[in-house]
Amino acid sequence: MTRDPKLCVHTITTKPWPIEVAMDKYAAAGIGGITVWRQALEGRNIAQVGDDLRARNLEIVSLCRGGFFPNKTSEGRAEAIEENRRAIREAAELGAPLVVLVCGAVPGQSLAESRRQIADGIAAVLPLAEELNVRLAIEPLHPMYADDRSAINTMASANAVCDELEHPLVGLAVDAYHVWWDPDLAAQIALTGEKNRLFAFHLCDWLTPTTDLLNDRGLMGEGCIDLKGMRALVEAAGFTGFHEVEIFSNRWWSADQDEFLARIQQAYFELG
Amino acid sequence: MTRDPKLCVHTITTKPWPIEVAMDKYAAAGIGGITVWRQALEGRNIAQVGDDLRARNLEIVSLCRGGFFPNKTSEGRAEAIEENRRAIREAAELGAPLVVLVCGAVPGQSLAESRRQIADGIAAVLPLAEELNVRLAIEPLHPMYADDRSAINTMASANAVCDELEHPLVGLAVDAYHVWWDPDLAAQIALTGEKNRLFAFHLCDWLTPTTDLLNDRGLMGEGCIDLKGMRALVEAAGFTGFHEVEIFSNRWWSADQDEFLARIQQAYFELG
Repeated sequence: MTRDPKLCVHTITTKPWPIEVAMDKYAAAGIGGITVWRQALEGRNIAQVGDDLRARNLEIVSLCRGGFFPNKTSEGRAEAIEENRRAIREAAELGAPLVVLVCGAVPGQSLAESRRQIADGIAAVLPLAEELNVRLAIEPLHPMYADDRSAINTMASANAVCDELEHPLVGLAVDAYHVWWDPDLAAQIALTGEKNRLFAFHLCDWLTPTTDLLNDRGLMGEGCIDLKGMRALVEAAGFTGFHEVEIFSNRWWSADQDEFLARIQQAYFELG
Repeated sequence: MTRDPKLCVHTITTKPWPIEVAMDKYAAAGIGGITVWRQALEGRNIAQVGDDLRARNLEIVSLCRGGFFPNKTSEGRAEAIEENRRAIREAAELGAPLVVLVCGAVPGQSLAESRRQIADGIAAVLPLAEELNVRLAIEPLHPMYADDRSAINTMASANAVCDELEHPLVGLAVDAYHVWWDPDLAAQIALTGEKNRLFAFHLCDWLTPTTDLLNDRGLMGEGCIDLKGMRALVEAAGFTGFHEVEIFSNRWWSADQDEFLARIQQAYFELG
C-alpha cells in the first residue's frame, strides 16, 4: 500500500476501534492524517495520545467537536462556552491545530437567535483560542439538522458569522455531505478560499435512499455526490490540506473494520 | 364546529380514506378547501369527482403532483413532459386551478443539469397550461430530497426558474417543512409575493427527532417550525389563499382518521 499523504481518517469513521487500535491501523495502512473525536480521548492522557500519534507519523488534523452554543438560558450558554474552552485546551494538549464546531440549535428557538448566540459564543472563546493558537472551523450542517444540531446550514451563513467576527482563527469546515446540494456551492467555496477561511474538507457520500438522518452516510463512491468536482473546487480555491474521511454509518460500523479501512483507501484512490 | 374557510386539507394527509370518504368527512367538518393527490383519482371519473367536491362546498385548491422532469435520456424527458400534460388535463377536468410540481432529480446527474431540464420541461408544458388556464407551482423541496426528488431546494432556486420563464402561470408552492430552515426565508417570501408568484402555502411541522426522511412529518404544533411567523410572512407578502395541511406521516396514517381530522382543525385553530 502506497502512502496517502493527503488522506486523513476521522476516528468516528472506525468507531468500533479505540484510538489505540485506530492509530496503529491507520499508521500501518500508510494514512497520513488523523482527526480525533473528543469522546475517543475519554480517560486517556491527552498529551500522551498526541505523542503516540506523532510517533506513528500521523498528522493530527483536527479535534471534533466543539460548538452547541445556543441555549434558552444564560446559564446554559455560559456552560457551553466553558465546554468549548475545554475543547480548545484539549486540542492544544493533543497538538491539534483546529477544533471543528457543530454550532448547535434549540428546537423552538428561532434560527436567527441561535445564530446570534453562536457568534457570541465563538467570540467568547476566541481569546483562549488565540492564547493557545488553535483555529476554529464552523461546519455548516445539512438543513435536516437545523432543529437541534446547527442553525448554520449553509456556507453563506457560516461566512456571515466569520464576516462578523473577522478573525484569522475563525473559518469553515466544508463537509461534502452537508453542502453538496447548495446551489451556491461553487461561489461559496471560491469566496471562502479568497478569505483564507477554508480550514477543512470532509469526505463521505449521500446514499439513495438514506434510511437514517444521522448514521446512514456512504463511503465515497456509494452515493450521488460529485466528490471529484467538489475537490476540484476546494483545490481551485487554494486548499492544500488533508481530505478527511468522516463516515457516520451503522452499516459500516457493523462491518469488519480492517476491510472497511481498505475500502476507504481504495475509494479515496479512485477519486483520482 | 365552526367553518374554517381558509383551511384546506390535502387528501394524502388522510391517506387511509378514499376520496369519496375524505370529501364527506372534510365537508361535514366544515373544512373549506381540498387538495387532491393524483393517485386518489385513479379509476374515477375525474369530472364527476370535481362535481362531487363542489356539491359539498369544498373549494378545489390544487392537484398534486406533476414534476419529475429530469432524466438521463431524452426519451425519459419526453415521457415526463407527456406525464405532466396528463396532470394538467386532469387538473382541468377536476376543476383545480393549480398543479403542484415536485420537480425531480436524478442521482448522479448534476443538480445544475437537472435544473436546466426542469426549466425546459416546464416551458414545454406551458402552452397546454395556458390553453386550459392551469397554474403551475414549483415546490422547493428540502435539501434532504436533492438526490432523487428535486433539484430545486430553495425558494431562490425556484424563483430563478420563474425568472427565466417569466410567465404569469408559473409560481411557487411554499411548504413550511421544506423551507423553514432557510436563512433567506423572509426575504424570499417577500420577493415571491412582490412578483405575484406566491401560489400556495402548505402547513405541517418538523419533528425532533425525525425518524424517517419521507413519512415522519408532524401535525402543526408538534414540532419546531415557527408556523405563526411563517404565516405572517406570507400574509404580509399579499397571500390570501388557502392554508393547506399536507402531512406525510406513517404514525398519523395508522391512527383513527376521524380523530386525526379533529386534531388538524384544533391545531389549525391554535395557530390563531
